[in-house]
Amino acid sequence: MLQVVIDGPGQVKVVEVTDPVLPGADGALVAVESTAICGSDLHFYDGDIPVGDGFPVGHEFIGTVVEVGPDVRRFRPGDRVLTASVAGCGHCDGCATGDPVTCVEGPKVFGSGMLGGGQATMVAVPSADFQLLAIPEGIDAEAALLLTDNLNTGWIGAKRADFAPGGTVVVLGLGAVGLCAVRSALVLGAGRVLAVDPVVGRRELAAESGAIPVEGATVEAVLESTHGRGADAVIDAVALDATLNDAFSCVRAGGTVSVIGVHNLDPYPLPVLMSLFRSITLRMTTAPVHQTWKDLVPLVANGRLRTDGIFTHRYPLADAAKAYAAVAARSADCIKVMMQP
Amino acid sequence: MLQVVIDGPGQVKVVEVTDPVLPGADGALVAVESTAICGSDLHFYDGDIPVGDGFPVGHEFIGTVVEVGPDVRRFRPGDRVLTASVAGCGHCDGCATGDPVTCVEGPKVFGSGMLGGGQATMVAVPSADFQLLAIPEGIDAEAALLLTDNLNTGWIGAKRADFAPGGTVVVLGLGAVGLCAVRSALVLGAGRVLAVDPVVGRRELAAESGAIPVEGATVEAVLESTHGRGADAVIDAVALDATLNDAFSCVRAGGTVSVIGVHNLDPYPLPVLMSLFRSITLRMTTAPVHQTWKDLVPLVANGRLRTDGIFTHRYPLADAAKAYAAVAARSADCIKVMMQP
Amino acid sequence: MLQVVIDGPGQVKVVEVTDPVLPGADGALVAVESTAICGSDLHFYDGDIPVGDGFPVGHEFIGTVVEVGPDVRRFRPGDRVLTASVAGCGHCDGCATGDPVTCVEGPKVFGSGMLGGGQATMVAVPSADFQLLAIPEGIDAEAALLLTDNLNTGWIGAKRADFAPGGTVVVLGLGAVGLCAVRSALVLGAGRVLAVDPVVGRRELAAESGAIPVEGATVEAVLESTHGRGADAVIDAVALDATLNDAFSCVRAGGTVSVIGVHNLDPYPLPVLMSLFRSITLRMTTAPVHQTWKDLVPLVANGRLRTDGIFTHRYPLADAAKAYAAVAARSADCIKVMMQP
Amino acid sequence: MLQVVIDGPGQVKVVEVTDPVLPGADGALVAVESTAICGSDLHFYDGDIPVGDGFPVGHEFIGTVVEVGPDVRRFRPGDRVLTASVAGCGHCDGCATGDPVTCVEGPKVFGSGMLGGGQATMVAVPSADFQLLAIPEGIDAEAALLLTDNLNTGWIGAKRADFAPGGTVVVLGLGAVGLCAVRSALVLGAGRVLAVDPVVGRRELAAESGAIPVEGATVEAVLESTHGRGADAVIDAVALDATLNDAFSCVRAGGTVSVIGVHNLDPYPLPVLMSLFRSITLRMTTAPVHQTWKDLVPLVANGRLRTDGIFTHRYPLADAAKAYAAVAARSADCIKVMMQP
Repeated sequence: MLQVVIDGPGQVKVVEVTDPVLPGADGALVAVESTAICGSDLHFYDGDIPVGDGFPVGHEFIGTVVEVGPDVRRFRPGDRVLTASVAGCGHCDGCATGDPVTCVEGPKVFGSGMLGGGQATMVAVPSADFQLLAIPEGIDAEAALLLTDNLNTGWIGAKRADFAPGGTVVVLGLGAVGLCAVRSALVLGAGRVLAVDPVVGRRELAAESGAIPVEGATVEAVLESTHGRGADAVIDAVALDATLNDAFSCVRAGGTVSVIGVHNLDPYPLPVLMSLFRSITLRMTTAPVHQTWKDLVPLVANGRLRTDGIFTHRYPLADAAKAYAAVAARSADCIKVMMQP
Repeated sequence: MLQVVIDGPGQVKVVEVTDPVLPGADGALVAVESTAICGSDLHFYDGDIPVGDGFPVGHEFIGTVVEVGPDVRRFRPGDRVLTASVAGCGHCDGCATGDPVTCVEGPKVFGSGMLGGGQATMVAVPSADFQLLAIPEGIDAEAALLLTDNLNTGWIGAKRADFAPGGTVVVLGLGAVGLCAVRSALVLGAGRVLAVDPVVGRRELAAESGAIPVEGATVEAVLESTHGRGADAVIDAVALDATLNDAFSCVRAGGTVSVIGVHNLDPYPLPVLMSLFRSITLRMTTAPVHQTWKDLVPLVANGRLRTDGIFTHRYPLADAAKAYAAVAARSADCIKVMMQP
Repeated sequence: MLQVVIDGPGQVKVVEVTDPVLPGADGALVAVESTAICGSDLHFYDGDIPVGDGFPVGHEFIGTVVEVGPDVRRFRPGDRVLTASVAGCGHCDGCATGDPVTCVEGPKVFGSGMLGGGQATMVAVPSADFQLLAIPEGIDAEAALLLTDNLNTGWIGAKRADFAPGGTVVVLGLGAVGLCAVRSALVLGAGRVLAVDPVVGRRELAAESGAIPVEGATVEAVLESTHGRGADAVIDAVALDATLNDAFSCVRAGGTVSVIGVHNLDPYPLPVLMSLFRSITLRMTTAPVHQTWKDLVPLVANGRLRTDGIFTHRYPLADAAKAYAAVAARSADCIKVMMQP
Repeated sequence: MLQVVIDGPGQVKVVEVTDPVLPGADGALVAVESTAICGSDLHFYDGDIPVGDGFPVGHEFIGTVVEVGPDVRRFRPGDRVLTASVAGCGHCDGCATGDPVTCVEGPKVFGSGMLGGGQATMVAVPSADFQLLAIPEGIDAEAALLLTDNLNTGWIGAKRADFAPGGTVVVLGLGAVGLCAVRSALVLGAGRVLAVDPVVGRRELAAESGAIPVEGATVEAVLESTHGRGADAVIDAVALDATLNDAFSCVRAGGTVSVIGVHNLDPYPLPVLMSLFRSITLRMTTAPVHQTWKDLVPLVANGRLRTDGIFTHRYPLADAAKAYAAVAARSADCIKVMMQP
């Protein structure tokens, strides 16, 4: 079968590998229908996180079950499914809460050296009963792909931002996750969402979604629009030092900074005493994907939470190199890329 | 000045009375700009709650401050204000939470024998700093009037319905309060709202607001649309035995029935054991009006929570008898009535 | 094997029946070590709920696994276990929350016509992975038995009473469940617990647990001790009309009545309008036993939540008739009875 | 009158100054009965935060009202009161929540250059109705002093640690605030509290309070006692880099680090990406003193939350230099010092 691999900074190849085998009695094999590139995949592509040759990538994919182990109870060959990008053992108390981050064995992510890469023709999925979700009625392919990672991340970032209904929320960074956070914050009752990104097309999409676009001078813009008080919550979907500094500077006393971006690889110099004097809460979160499906599926299926406009480009899986290049260019018109085997 | 009074069942008069005087050092006098008839006023009009001759009515009004006592700190003559329909002492721990229902002296309601009637030219408002809200930018007269009682009631009914985002919510009764509950439930992240009323025009307005209209056979409709499981929450904006029976029959195990209607004057035969076996929560709530302003003002001012379409009729205060007759007819086209002195 | 059955009002027999068989591939057989009589068993004994001849009873038991089906993953023969009195399918979204009341197939209770009776030598337990808990270190037999039903019920009754730390809580009825509620409310941060029961020995046990005993004139006692304001929460572990009336009369405006008693078989005439004017919440709850283990096990194992003093009598299973008579007498010295095969 | 001042590192003097005057129409003058030294006062004493000559200090004090402005409604001369160490305007929406940190004018602290020093004979208290609390029945002088700052801080640190009942909580640093956090965590339902400090006497006092004392090797001890999983919450009452490192290393995935110590004056190198992968919440909190009184007063007055054993030394105000030296020595037997004019 075909597998997308990273071969060093900027080097993407599609290679022929042997098909995966059933990963245990509770596992399943899924034939990929569509797969997507996540912003975090760029850490491998850009070389921020060095990887060996032929590193299989991809953690967002949907497809069809082709084989299940004898202990799988909920799925049968032919079922159309989406998966959570993060996996757990599926049986411990942590997984029972729907959050593999708290799995007793630790979380595992597809395409990161822990599990098979999802940018492929076929993927071995362990603990299938826990890990897969039958694609529900009313959920199209784009929505299904977003429900593997990015929408869950934006949603949890908004939920854990802890704002009350009517609150003022700032979202820093309007890539796929940030846009999902914008829409989630509105569904969760934000009074208004200030959406910040240097790329005009992303700001426009946020504005169409109901947000107030902000271009540059974030802190000034937020303080001005809140009479100097600051925002109730800031969702940082970038998490570079610069955005974290902005977040701490424009959140109100008693407010929350919710971090869902994964850019910062070095420690951030946190102003502890100042944050203590202002009673700031900082939440850093990997999405408990499974846990969020219960909220998100009816919201998406009923059209209350939109998922359109986020996928801007489509490529055959064989053109993965082009697909990665498109994402890495961070151009005005490219937000998220889908690939199909 | 003019005061609307009830003189017995179906008898409404507008009488000339002496102007009110300042109700203590922390009170204010407010010249009424607009006032509205609340569904609960009909208890007096219909004679369900018998009142003496010349009973002054009205608890929803907005206007302009014309005089303040020496201890009033936040308001000055000329300020345009709305009031909470329920008043408290303004100084106790209960009022500090913004809920006069928990006031140490007990709550007081305008136009119910406890405080002056708001359907008048002028009203004496005690504890003005607590009781009044300067009408904020972005809030029109209709919204301001709804923020004195009905929107706060619909909102708190939805909030105390305790549903998670994505949940299925039923609203029984689509008068002004029920419609406000429908819109509030959607702002609070309901996956869908099933809106029930025998009057087609009200169902249509709910549908335009984003709800799914249901005509009759409530229990069957809810169970069918939830695969027999029942709704996560039922908001009963009527509260007759019939609607309460429906609510208990169509709420899911573990769900909440949130009662904000005031129709039921007799005890309701509550199925305690059955409700215990199904772990039902029943919340009966008088809106903590003051407490809800913080959430509601930015939502309304930013257009996130609509208030249009609810006021269907306008009368001069002098035509109060006609106004009451219009409301009492419960006709298809009349939802809520505004009167102006 | 031996099975306790009810043969009509006041008639308890211990009969020889054939051993149960494994209830499906995910089930287990448990050899009973100890079993207890619950207050709710008296509905069958007293004839309030008429049952046919030879009705097998008992839903509280602990024991040792003797056989498991092929799909059971977490238990092996020889494991010492306790069970939840209420069972669910173990696989649906409702069961995933640990609350079989919300099970898609509906909850099932041992010894109530739905599953085998636990007052027996052996019990068939379906969905064993979900239904059983390995008795943790630090949990003695009394605590383990209480963790099948009564402690969970008292705990959830206190939790769902929604009081803030420091709050004043009233507990009506100091049987095993009521005493568990007293202790739970204290662990949950109640400022004080007023414990009401006509039986002096039960009040004394509550007092030793840290509560303030109240004998009769509940409403007056509560109002006096709260300066007329009422209690923040009332936990009704009886749920007769009389106690419910007391609860509604002594809970403060904005407070919660949490019902965990199962005495009331007829509808209760609920004062809806009065409760609405006072913003009362009424919660009626069957314990989500599985869900509460996470909280309760460390509290009991670390000695933070005491379980001593509640079991006052012990009988051989063969003397079940005497055991039931002791409980039914509701005497001063008998709170809860344990039986051993 | 007498005023304790800092005159440079290690230099404490008691000087004669003119009496304060009434701070506005809503202010009061309070004659100090007792005052205490807070750990944060040592920043001035140690010279970490350089101050000018004759810097008046002290923010914890209780006393008797001797004069009130004309707008003060709740207090009269002769009232025995405690104050919150942090003050606000008393009238804005932030203060209405009981948290001056969110005051529209910003919080002000006694004895820190913003308001008069509380280690004095007399103190001017602005916004007296908001700022003061009549010392309630059942609250002795030690408890009253702790209710001005340290108990509130320990309490909110425990509350904002967000652990569920039964959870494992670590407290780092067992000075007055840390010990208050230990006791608070137990009142809030912690399953167990691991209490860490190098000073044996402090560990012993924590153990007497119900905690499990830990000496050194914090991370190892916590991981061992949680089977490698980590604590549900870590309360850092020190907040040096070393304790913050320990906190992040021993909190479980999905857990909370609650910082209430004020030692760290420099930025802390926060491991953002690692914390994100483990979904950690970091809360840094200045106590909303006023807000916590509602919870704390009944808990202390009813003996549910102990305040004994924390004050270990008493001095006349005139011996303030000795008192500061005793605190600064951080000796085994000195936890907190009270001074009396």
